[in-house]
Amino acid sequence: MSSEKDTICAISTAQGMGAIAVIRLSGDEAITICEKIFRPATKGKSLLKQKANTIHFGSIADGDKDIDEVLISLFKGPHSFTGEDIAEISCHGAPYIQQQILQLLIRQGARLANPGEFTQRAFLSGKMDLSQAEAVADLIASRSEAARKVALQQMRGGFSSELVNLRTQLLHFISLVELELDFSEEEVEFADRSELKKLVCNIETLLSKLVNSFSLGNAIKNGIPVAIVGHTNAGKSTLLNTLLQEERAIVSDIHGTTRDVIEDTMNIEGITFRFIDTAGIRTTKDKIENLGIELTYSKISKAAIVMLLLDVNDPHDKIHAAITDVKNRMDDHTQQLIVLINKTDLIDKEVMKARFSKKEFRELTGTDAIVPVSAKRKINIEALTNELLKTVNMQAIHNDEVIVTNARHYEALKKSHEAILRVLDGLNSQISGDFLAQDIREVLYYLGEITGQISTDEILGNIFKNFCIGK
Amino acid sequence: MSSEKDTICAISTAQGMGAIAVIRLSGDEAITICEKIFRPATKGKSLLKQKANTIHFGSIADGDKDIDEVLISLFKGPHSFTGEDIAEISCHGAPYIQQQILQLLIRQGARLANPGEFTQRAFLSGKMDLSQAEAVADLIASRSEAARKVALQQMRGGFSSELVNLRTQLLHFISLVELELDFSEEEVEFADRSELKKLVCNIETLLSKLVNSFSLGNAIKNGIPVAIVGHTNAGKSTLLNTLLQEERAIVSDIHGTTRDVIEDTMNIEGITFRFIDTAGIRTTKDKIENLGIELTYSKISKAAIVMLLLDVNDPHDKIHAAITDVKNRMDDHTQQLIVLINKTDLIDKEVMKARFSKKEFRELTGTDAIVPVSAKRKINIEALTNELLKTVNMQAIHNDEVIVTNARHYEALKKSHEAILRVLDGLNSQISGDFLAQDIREVLYYLGEITGQISTDEILGNIFKNFCIGK
Repeated sequence: MSSEKDTICAISTAQGMGAIAVIRLSGDEAITICEKIFRPATKGKSLLKQKANTIHFGSIADGDKDIDEVLISLFKGPHSFTGEDIAEISCHGAPYIQQQILQLLIRQGARLANPGEFTQRAFLSGKMDLSQAEAVADLIASRSEAARKVALQQMRGGFSSELVNLRTQLLHFISLVELELDFSEEEVEFADRSELKKLVCNIETLLSKLVNSFSLGNAIKNGIPVAIVGHTNAGKSTLLNTLLQEERAIVSDIHGTTRDVIEDTMNIEGITFRFIDTAGIRTTKDKIENLGIELTYSKISKAAIVMLLLDVNDPHDKIHAAITDVKNRMDDHTQQLIVLINKTDLIDKEVMKARFSKKEFRELTGTDAIVPVSAKRKINIEALTNELLKTVNMQAIHNDEVIVTNARHYEALKKSHEAILRVLDGLNSQISGDFLAQDIREVLYYLGEITGQISTDEILGNIFKNFCIGK
Repeated sequence: MSSEKDTICAISTAQGMGAIAVIRLSGDEAITICEKIFRPATKGKSLLKQKANTIHFGSIADGDKDIDEVLISLFKGPHSFTGEDIAEISCHGAPYIQQQILQLLIRQGARLANPGEFTQRAFLSGKMDLSQAEAVADLIASRSEAARKVALQQMRGGFSSELVNLRTQLLHFISLVELELDFSEEEVEFADRSELKKLVCNIETLLSKLVNSFSLGNAIKNGIPVAIVGHTNAGKSTLLNTLLQEERAIVSDIHGTTRDVIEDTMNIEGITFRFIDTAGIRTTKDKIENLGIELTYSKISKAAIVMLLLDVNDPHDKIHAAITDVKNRMDDHTQQLIVLINKTDLIDKEVMKARFSKKEFRELTGTDAIVPVSAKRKINIEALTNELLKTVNMQAIHNDEVIVTNARHYEALKKSHEAILRVLDGLNSQISGDFLAQDIREVLYYLGEITGQISTDEILGNIFKNFCIGK
């Protein structure tokens, strides 16, 4: 374990060559260490005497040797990101120069920061709670509008301030309940049961809402997996290309071209969809292709949306078989089916109507999400993307509802919710104070885990190891 | 052509995800544009009223939608890098967020900067001359200590201030010489010929020194190409691996393993050596391998140093043939030979001495640079790197001598030097004033090209197009 008080340093900008790079120091000695290697352009100017939030031009020097001309920005604790003194060196963006300065800082007494250690210090010094700290990493990793929005909301407090508030009220009650236990012989009730029940109901409502928001939150954070399945040559790769608007998969007229599972992502109105192109479903003796088909079936189970692509020119029995095959392998409760009828450009409108009634399809597939398209001619693709968006609760995003995106929070919220339901049960069945206290303690524990009021080195280690260095 | 006055913006940090990223704006509207999208953490605080070189915390907002929490650094012209107002937005390092902010800035009236446009503005506003501006790009691209040092020296003025000074003196003389031409009937001499000659001699001395420094400068900037040649199985790939201390080339005992030319670089005491591994030289019917051998010969001609690797266990005639073969293909004037006698670990010291006398090798190869090594056991590798360093004028680097690294400067210096020699000739042979003036004009022209006192859009375009965007 490293001391909290030492001064850490790291390159905070992206790896590689850029016009400029930023090296960040935080800790008691941050400014003192910079002072030792900084030659201000204005002679005699000392960094130690400068105000917070100011910028200073000069050189970084290793003894007599000037390394680079830089700008140094100064921030002073507690009014800084970490709550400590911070210096940021903005140097020329050569990786060689970045490394030279970093090594010099280490020789002068700074220590290379661990991943996320700046944010960890912000948490430890009380600048943010743990769920806010976690949101910093989510914000940096965000690749879509919805992910960015939800991460920023969470970084600014999100649901954690409300959780902290409710937890504090619950803490007050448990101290009263536990006081009763000391006087258990006398059957007194310090904790007003109806007040406690009101609070517990409030907490249950919030937790239930938060737990339920996770399926959307997870979709926002990790993207929504969409499997594109169908018979060989139904046009799956062409559809993927059209959706991604680039030639990503190899398209050919030979049956069974796509053997690997190709995955790509697409943002539609700020939501990331992860498209999984699959091998065509058909009977084949080609061993490698059979492996691909097996993979297709396993991928279907991992998708939230299954997009079944049918060739309008195929015979009825082949289409029926494809629908039955896919529906047998889907879970209707957790997965949504979208049926695409492809190659509509190759068939006359009247002929198509005569062959396939929408009603027939609805009955066969059990869904209204039936879209005729031409993947090749890019016809009706917008109707398809609209169907995809319908599967997402966009309302919740537009209304800035609180959405849980973090799997760790979700687990803790689920456990708190289970415990709070037990508390509620206990209150209804007038359970004894000691059992009640035990369940409340459990709620407090899991809620505290989310915001970091209760945290272990192991929890912190797991959270911050996934940060980038320099944050 | 874009107006000089508009406000430009670009991401200045390296591409990709980092903890933070910096977006830079420069121009009259830099701070005004930021003001429009910045929501300061301290309510009511206006960026327009803040001092130069200060940092401000708040959010970037697109209308009602907050995009990110950022720091904004303010710099004010003319005391800034470009000489204009500059704002630097330090945001969370998600590429998605960087793009959102950049697009917002463009919607608010900024224009995406061209490569090097910030530095070009610094040049156009007189903050640096052209050779200094070019050094900014060299500094960012520097990959070795020597390259960094020379680029920083040049960015700080290097030889250009002296050139500007001498050019000004020469300008004074040419005006006098041209005045004489107006009075040509009267045979007056306004320009003191002995003073002029002294100045011209000074200029000639400096230019000659600068022109000669380029071979070192070029080696520092681009690395020194070293071809490793020898018979198949002499241990060339093993040697390269040992030098690079990693398994880069495929090593096997089968003759003719290395068919491709593998190139890698290594820094020795701040100098970059570019090692060119080659196919072994031997007669073979393998067509692909023969192509490799042809390539080997063509690579020898491009190397500054040829490292001939001999297997100490080979028969005398094979060794003689290898030496003769390589020497026939080398240019003794421009290329240096280093002879390595490899696999010394496999032979008894006394036996080796008896078979190979150093004198014999010296006579055969015409060089003293003969190093017995074992590439496999890493024996005597330091003696080899010392031989490599001997080929470089390290003295000039340690003494901070002015070194020209830029091919454009070299060409202009060569032309100025040729012209100044003509001026000197003319002075010695008492040439007429109009011929003298013509040669001096040429010197002035080429010197002016280096520092940018004379520049065309084409020259500027060629220089700045190679910069990265954001600098």
